[in-house]
Order: sequence, then structure tokens, then C-alpha cells
Amino acid sequence: MEPVSPSHTLGYLHDDEHGIRVPVTQIALEPSPNGQVNEPFTVYRTEGPGSDPVRGLPPFRAKWIEARGDTEAYSGRERNLHDDGRAALRRGAASAEWEGDKPLTRRSLPGKTVTQMFYARKGVITPEMRFVALRENCDVELVRSEVAAGRAIIPNSINHPESEPMIIGKAFLVKINANIGNSAVTSSIAEEVDKLQWAAQWGADTVMDLSTGDDIHTTREWIIRNSPVPIGTVPIYQALEKVNGEANALTWEIYRDTVIEQCEQGVDYMTVHAGVLLRYVPLTAERVTGIVSRGGSIMAGWCLAHHQENFLYTHFDELCEIFARYDVAFSLGDGLRPGSTADANDAAQFAELDTLAELTKRAWKYDVQVMVEGPGHIPFHLVRENVERQQELCDGAPFYTLGPLVTDVAPGYDHITSAIGATEIARYGTAMLCYVTPKEHLGLPNKDDVKTGVITYKIAAHAADLAKGHPGAHERDDALSKARFEFRWRDQFALSLDPVTAEAFHDETLPAEPAKTAHFCSMCGPKFCSMRISQDIRDQFGGLSEQQIVAGMEEKSAAFRESGGKVYLPEPVVGAPDTP
Amino acid sequence: MEPVSPSHTLGYLHDDEHGIRVPVTQIALEPSPNGQVNEPFTVYRTEGPGSDPVRGLPPFRAKWIEARGDTEAYSGRERNLHDDGRAALRRGAASAEWEGDKPLTRRSLPGKTVTQMFYARKGVITPEMRFVALRENCDVELVRSEVAAGRAIIPNSINHPESEPMIIGKAFLVKINANIGNSAVTSSIAEEVDKLQWAAQWGADTVMDLSTGDDIHTTREWIIRNSPVPIGTVPIYQALEKVNGEANALTWEIYRDTVIEQCEQGVDYMTVHAGVLLRYVPLTAERVTGIVSRGGSIMAGWCLAHHQENFLYTHFDELCEIFARYDVAFSLGDGLRPGSTADANDAAQFAELDTLAELTKRAWKYDVQVMVEGPGHIPFHLVRENVERQQELCDGAPFYTLGPLVTDVAPGYDHITSAIGATEIARYGTAMLCYVTPKEHLGLPNKDDVKTGVITYKIAAHAADLAKGHPGAHERDDALSKARFEFRWRDQFALSLDPVTAEAFHDETLPAEPAKTAHFCSMCGPKFCSMRISQDIRDQFGGLSEQQIVAGMEEKSAAFRESGGKVYLPEPVVGAPDTP
Repeated sequence: MEPVSPSHTLGYLHDDEHGIRVPVTQIALEPSPNGQVNEPFTVYRTEGPGSDPVRGLPPFRAKWIEARGDTEAYSGRERNLHDDGRAALRRGAASAEWEGDKPLTRRSLPGKTVTQMFYARKGVITPEMRFVALRENCDVELVRSEVAAGRAIIPNSINHPESEPMIIGKAFLVKINANIGNSAVTSSIAEEVDKLQWAAQWGADTVMDLSTGDDIHTTREWIIRNSPVPIGTVPIYQALEKVNGEANALTWEIYRDTVIEQCEQGVDYMTVHAGVLLRYVPLTAERVTGIVSRGGSIMAGWCLAHHQENFLYTHFDELCEIFARYDVAFSLGDGLRPGSTADANDAAQFAELDTLAELTKRAWKYDVQVMVEGPGHIPFHLVRENVERQQELCDGAPFYTLGPLVTDVAPGYDHITSAIGATEIARYGTAMLCYVTPKEHLGLPNKDDVKTGVITYKIAAHAADLAKGHPGAHERDDALSKARFEFRWRDQFALSLDPVTAEAFHDETLPAEPAKTAHFCSMCGPKFCSMRISQDIRDQFGGLSEQQIVAGMEEKSAAFRESGGKVYLPEPVVGAPDTP
Repeated sequence: MEPVSPSHTLGYLHDDEHGIRVPVTQIALEPSPNGQVNEPFTVYRTEGPGSDPVRGLPPFRAKWIEARGDTEAYSGRERNLHDDGRAALRRGAASAEWEGDKPLTRRSLPGKTVTQMFYARKGVITPEMRFVALRENCDVELVRSEVAAGRAIIPNSINHPESEPMIIGKAFLVKINANIGNSAVTSSIAEEVDKLQWAAQWGADTVMDLSTGDDIHTTREWIIRNSPVPIGTVPIYQALEKVNGEANALTWEIYRDTVIEQCEQGVDYMTVHAGVLLRYVPLTAERVTGIVSRGGSIMAGWCLAHHQENFLYTHFDELCEIFARYDVAFSLGDGLRPGSTADANDAAQFAELDTLAELTKRAWKYDVQVMVEGPGHIPFHLVRENVERQQELCDGAPFYTLGPLVTDVAPGYDHITSAIGATEIARYGTAMLCYVTPKEHLGLPNKDDVKTGVITYKIAAHAADLAKGHPGAHERDDALSKARFEFRWRDQFALSLDPVTAEAFHDETLPAEPAKTAHFCSMCGPKFCSMRISQDIRDQFGGLSEQQIVAGMEEKSAAFRESGGKVYLPEPVVGAPDTP
């Protein structure tokens, strides 16, 4: 992948003692006009080392996983074309079988637990934790203790050794997720891998594969093998495909088999709608928009059709045992989230949250990592209650929210309506934000939409980090503002979240190369420059204390008065008509 | 102008007793699938009746103004090509003289005050107040009393009788302003008129003409004569042009003459940077970005060069007398606003605010309407303090803020970084939001940028109205959500803030005409539909009380148990492996 700016290069943070290095992006800066050197600026990097899509990424975590001696390699499920849908069965093959490298399929040895939470609770610091601490520039003990307490998760399946460890928790940088995936309607495997790499390059911390069309298994294989970030899925989507979209035909066996299939591939976290209980379903009857969560409505439909309790709830302990064998994290789905501001914070939503809190604690009994999903559509003044309530009920388990959108009236701009709510909810403790693209409610996002969604959510996440006073969060703002004040245009572009767009917009008005170093901007033009006046002020008063300044001013004033001038008197300038 | 949706038509609200009618947009809606008729939805309309740019709009307020008998028509200043800059002087004419209709130039009769505040304080209800009350769907007494108290303004100059009265105050709908204007670098008179009409069509409540290039006077004439919304300016910009951009050469006389020139043309409100006091200037010396307000730096430069107090401050009372004669409102400029999050809420910013509070009360002594401008760049957690402090110090005078941007790291996306701060600051009482376009910090906005800025700010303003619980604000959200739930795609487009974009995005994925009425969306596809399941739930439980629902469920359960089924028991579905 080309870097997004010529000033960007790949660098590393090193923990030589433990043989760990963390990729970062180094941003080279020009010197200031006064000659002062500006050190390269280091930023968190999600794009990974980059891969040839047909070969995949190196499984750099494999040695850490093996070294723990708590897992065994095994053959795993047999290749089953049924996993790829009817088209593949007809063909006798998926449309593009994965032929690149594939790490050995692993599971825990009988009786062993292999989760990061298990080790954290035992007081063991894993290489994954050290990687995260280096990446977050924090004490590794903070990482261990937050994971042990369930307040943070490191979603890195033992079958996704290509992934770079990252942490989701309110004590750390706010993270963002980008959704990709093909659908019954459109898009190829290559397109999805391209979207994955594109999303990671622009800053997605995790990616969810929400594929619902053909070749689901194979598409996911390509995505995982090429992904430097954790991959999340919603297994019920694939299970539904296996029963030809008939929700009523779903069974626990089909679901369980699908989950194991995905665990063996290396999915890092799975959305499970186990909180949609039969008795909650009627609470949605009077809503303006009913149930809008796809997984939620699948389970609600199943519960009603069979008049039985949600099998994800009745089999939750078994799911915990499966997840514990692969270190897959739960993302407890909010299947009853509001689909309109009118339905926000209602009985159905909060009843489900009570159950998600119960399930969080059940998962923790198995040392399985958990985050909890949140809404949705919430008017601005009701947003804060959502995260505070979830944090209290779920004992601080990470909250992972979709927006929320603070108004319903702007389809086509829901990346914006939701970024407003996302900033507010992250400010009060949401750990990860699921992006929303401009196509929300209208269609499937293309590559441009994915980028717009990612950048918009980087803004929300960073604005929340600033509001939380997260250590060092303001440094990038200050570096960019200094570059702006000093008319270091190239540095201003390079330090921005989207250097390509920033430079393109600048060039629309002032395309010439000299304009990149011009000491004025298109607003004031060359004749007059507010920045220049500010520089004069700094030259005259910079470094003086307030007392010195006042003294200095009075001195000047005295001299000025002696010279016959007028200062500080509310009198007209000489020659002006009198004022009453 | 073509309506933005075929479902939109011009309608009117009537106050027949007083012969007043207020234009509104009527949105025709299709019936619900169950046959229920959906009444047309009425929305606030800013675009006015539409005009032929070369003729201008009808001066429909002229009769109201004349009827008060407190003004006289007079010749006004002589046409002075110098007002249009050197190019016009060379040519001997402006590039395109205004030849359309021009209302008589008016001023107050000697000893008379003609402002809306004057009449409000006397207990007189003007036609402008009735127009506003109809438009805001509120009691006219609320309008009068808020204007009388200075908590709201109706910025409608007596020389801009083409303008439709609107109100800016925290008891009313949050308003937005769009900036247009040519510059030394680019753009023609026709383009600016086009941008004005474009901005008003998409929902700008007021427009500021920030022209700084050639033909300033004539460009403004074309804009005012065609504007259904109040026009604001920053007179110091034109005054600076008159002295060839040499801030030091500015004098009160030149400024005063420029203000009168603009009062006679019909500017409705003017930004005056009278709070930039000599002694405050040094407080900016240690800032990361110094002084970024153009007007603020002009005055700071002048103060330093002459070592005299800001002539806008020393002549403020005379300005009040001038504004009182034309009912021009002050927009007290925050020349020392922070230009980066690092400089937010600092000594310079808050020192100036203290002075703006003093000036607010001085203007009120003359019955002159006032709003106060605010920042700028403020991290999210420091936004609220800005509006609460301003409201307290300025006795509730309307706050008018630029954003604020909550982070500095996203040039190219500052419509978004600022919409986040704008929603927060409006939630706590800011009355009008000045838009920011994607080109902020980078270049001059084109027509697309103007639209993006306006729509983004309509989102922020509306989200704040919802958060404030403004009466009726939620109705549009609910109507759109209902249309969404019922798959009334055309209604969903028509009710959105940007019907054109919403429909275009939908058609990218599902272009066919039938898809406009398809009862599924591209996310789930035709095979499975969450909305359909919600409808089933509604059919089964809709209208039942919670007790009835529980009873109903138990009945079903009983029947189910008798039939040998299992309900509510956390046991595996028959045939599933046991769970511990």
C-alpha cells in the first residue's frame, strides 16, 4: 500500500527485552520559520505490515501462542461447501478458494483455558499485553489489571496469529470498528479484502465481516488471513444462510456448528444476541420502528414461531466453553436497540441490557472476554444515560456502540448524525465505536463510504480522548495547530487524519506549488495576514509575565503620552467627531 | 428554483386578522400500507418566494415599516465608486451595476427609535413579531417579551424590506448562518447571488457576506436585494479595502462612513470587534495560534501600531446611535477567540467576553438589538462552560458561535469536527450556529461546500432542538422513522434534510423504480426482513397493556406446555447436547 502522505514512514517501538516491536507511523516535519527543528511525530498505526491478498500476512503471534503450551493443533472441521451456500454447492467449489498460507488450526488442550483474561487473572503478563502496553504508551500492569477485571479485552483469537494485539477498554484510547461484507445483492471476495485493507489503512481498529451472500466461509478466510486487526462476525447471519433464510428453521446445532467453523478460522469476537428473551419481544410492539437489529429480529422471530426461549440464551454456558477454547470474545448484541429516537431508552432496550449484564458475569466465570453492544438512535440529551447505566450494570465491561444517531432526519449524512452521539457516549466511557457510513439506511457502502465512515469515527474517538484528558491525546492537535500557525502547509496535511483530502482542498483554491509554502491563506489573501500580526505580538510580548507586560505597556503609554498621543482614554482619535 | 423534492410544495400559514402569511414547505406523504392516510407534513421554510437575480425580491415589509410613521425616506450617500475598490475606479464603473428594483433608503425621523427592541419594550407587537410567532408556532407574547428582555433579536433592517422576519434566541428554534462572499482571489457577483439563493434553499436562516475583493458594495447590493434572509457583514473588511489593506491607515471616519453605507443598503446585522482592547492584546502572545479572527487581528494590529485604544470601543456609543436609526443589530465579534483547542477558554478569550458583556448593556441603553459571537476551537469537555458563562455575563443576550471545532486534527472535515461542538453548545443555549464548511482552514467554499456546510449545521441545530425538548421538534424525526418502518421510500427521501442525496444513495444500490416501493432494504435483502418480523409482533401484541401481554403470553405458554412443548426453561432444545 502507498502511504497516504509522502511524509509518512513505517517505524517501530521496541521492547528488546521481550523481543517485541510495535509498528507505528512516523510523520516527518519541516523546521519552523525560526529555524527550530521539529522532531518526527509518531502516531498509532492500524494498517499492519501490508500483505499480498493472495498470500496473506505472516502469523507473527504463532510463536507466542505455541510457547504457552496450552493448545494443540488439530485438523478441525472438514471443508464443507455448504458453508459457502448453494451457489458453491452447485459449482462444486467456492468462487475463489483460499490458496495462500494458513496457520495450523488450534484449540486449547483438554482442561486448559487459553484466554487473555485467564492469564491476566493469574497475574501472568502475556506478549500480547506487552505489545498493547507499548502501543498505548502505558504501564503493562494497567493492561493486565484492566483485562483481569473485565474492564478491557484483547480480542485476538489463537487462530488469528496474523493479528496485531489491541485493547478495548475505557482506560485506553477509544477504538473504532468498520463493517464490511458482501450481501445477497452484491460484491466479490477481492472487493471485500480491498475494503478490509482500505479500512485498516485509514484507521479502523477492528473490522466486522457482515457477509450475508454467497461464499461466506471463503470470503471470511480471505479476510482473516489478510487482516492485521481483529475480525468480528455475527454467526447467526451465516447460520440463517445455511437454512435458506428461514429463521424458523434455525437450530442450536446449526448455530453451534457455525460458531465452531468460525472459531477454527480465527474470528476474534462474535456478536451473540442472547439477550433477546421471549418475554421482551412484546415490549417492542408499540415502538415506532419495532426491532431493527437483524440478529435481534431473527431471534425474536424464532422465539415467537417456536414460542420457546432464545436458544442463544439457553445454551449460553456451552457457548462460553467453546469461546474459552479459542479465546474468542463475546460482543453481546443489543438486538432490541432502538431504531429511531422515538424508541430510545425504552423498556425493551433496558430489559435486554439487564440480561446482557447477567450474561457478562456468566461469561467471566469461564474467563471469557466480553464487550457489550449499545445503540443506535438516541437523542443527544439521553445518550449519557446509556453508557453510565451499562457501565454500572455490567461492572465496567467495555461498551461498544453503534453511533448513536442523535436525529433521524438526515439519511445520507448519518455518519455525521451518529458521530455527534458517538463523541458524547465515548466521552462518558464507551470503549469502541462502530462506524456508520453515509449510506446507512439507504444502501451498501462503497470504498469511498468506508473511508468517510472511518475518518468521521476517528474524529469522534479522538475528540472523546481529548475530552477525557487521555494522556498525550492533545499532542497531535497541538503539533498540527503549530504547523498551521507557522504556515507549514505540508506538515498540516501530513499531521491530519486525511492528508490526501486536506491537500486536495487546499490546491483547489491555490494549486501552485509555491502556495504550499506561502505565508498566507486563501481567506485573507497575501495583502493582509492575521497570523503575521500574531507573530508581531509574540515578538513584542512573548515570554513576558503578566506583570512585565502591564509594566511594559504603561511605559510605552507614558512615552506615548509625553509625545502627545492619547491612550486608554475613551476619547475620539484626533479629528474624529465628538461622541456623546 | 426547482424544489429539492417533487413532494415539496410552497404553502402558507395565515394570520388573516393582521393580513400576515408565512411561507412554509408542505411535504406530501403517501398512505401507510394499512391504508391509513398521512397528512402533509409542514416544515419551516427559509428560501423565500424565489427571485430573478437581476430584478430582486418584492419589498413586502415596506408597508409595515412605513405604517409605523417613524422613518423618513432620504437620498442617502452619493454613489461612490471608491466603495467598490480600485478596479471599479479604474473602470469608471463596478463590474455589474445593480439595475433592479431598489426600495427607498430610510432612516428614523429625528428623535425616533425604530428598533424591534424599542417597540417590544414599549409593549407594542409589530407585524414582524406576528410573522415570527406564526413561523415558530409560538405565542406572540413570547416573541415580544424575549426581544424586550434582550434574550432574542429580530435582525431586519428597515432598508431590507425584502427580508422575511426571523428570530434568534434560545427560547426559539436554533438557527444557522452561512458565510458567502468573494475574495481577493476569486468569484463573481452572479456566483455570490447564486450561493445566497442556494444556501437559503437548503436552510440557512441568515447569510453573512464576507466579501473582501473588488466590487464589495455592488456585490452586497445584489445580495441584499435578492435575499429573503437577514444579511450580516463585517464592515471592517470593506474599510480595510478602502485603505488598501493597510490596517494602520484605518480611521474611525472611514469605518463610520462604511457602516452608514451598509446601513443604507440594508445590512441587517454587523459584526463589530469592539472587545479587542489594547490591554488584552498581549494576553495572546503565548498562544499556540495567536489571533485567528481576521477582524480581531486587524484591530489588534491597529491598537499596537498606534498604541491607542480600539476605536470601535471608544466610539461604541456613536455606533449605537447609528444602528438605532436603521434597526441594525450588533453581532459583537470575538476577535480573540481561540484558533486551536490548546488556546481554548484562556485569559484573552474570557477577558474579551467581559468587555462584550459591558458593550451588550451599553447597546441595550439605545434599544439596539445585540447578539454575542463565540468560538471557535474548544475541546468537547470545555464547550458547555462557554455558553453558560456568556449567558450569565451578558444577561441572556443571544450567543452566536462558530462551531466550535472539538479537535484540530481533521482539516477537510471541519464541518464535522465543528458540528459536534455546535450540537453541544446549542444544547446549552446557543441561539445561532455559524456553519463551517469542509474547506475551512484550506480554501474558499464552492457551491457543494456551501450545501454540505448548511446541511451539516441543520443537523446540529435540529439535534440540539431535540435535546432541548423544543416543542414539536421530534415530529419530523417520528414522521421519517414511521415512513422508514413502513418502507415508504419516497416519503423517507422527501422528509429528509437532503432528499436529493438520500434518493441518489438509495438508487446506487437499488436503482430500479420498484425498489422505491420494495418492502425490504439492501442490508437484509428480499429473503429476510427485520421490519416484517416487527410487523408480525405488532399484529400479535399491538395495543395490549403490559398485563394483557404477560397474561397472553402465559396462556400461550400453558397451551404450549399441554402440547408437550417447553417454554421459559433454560433447557436445551430437544436433541441438543446437554449443557452443564
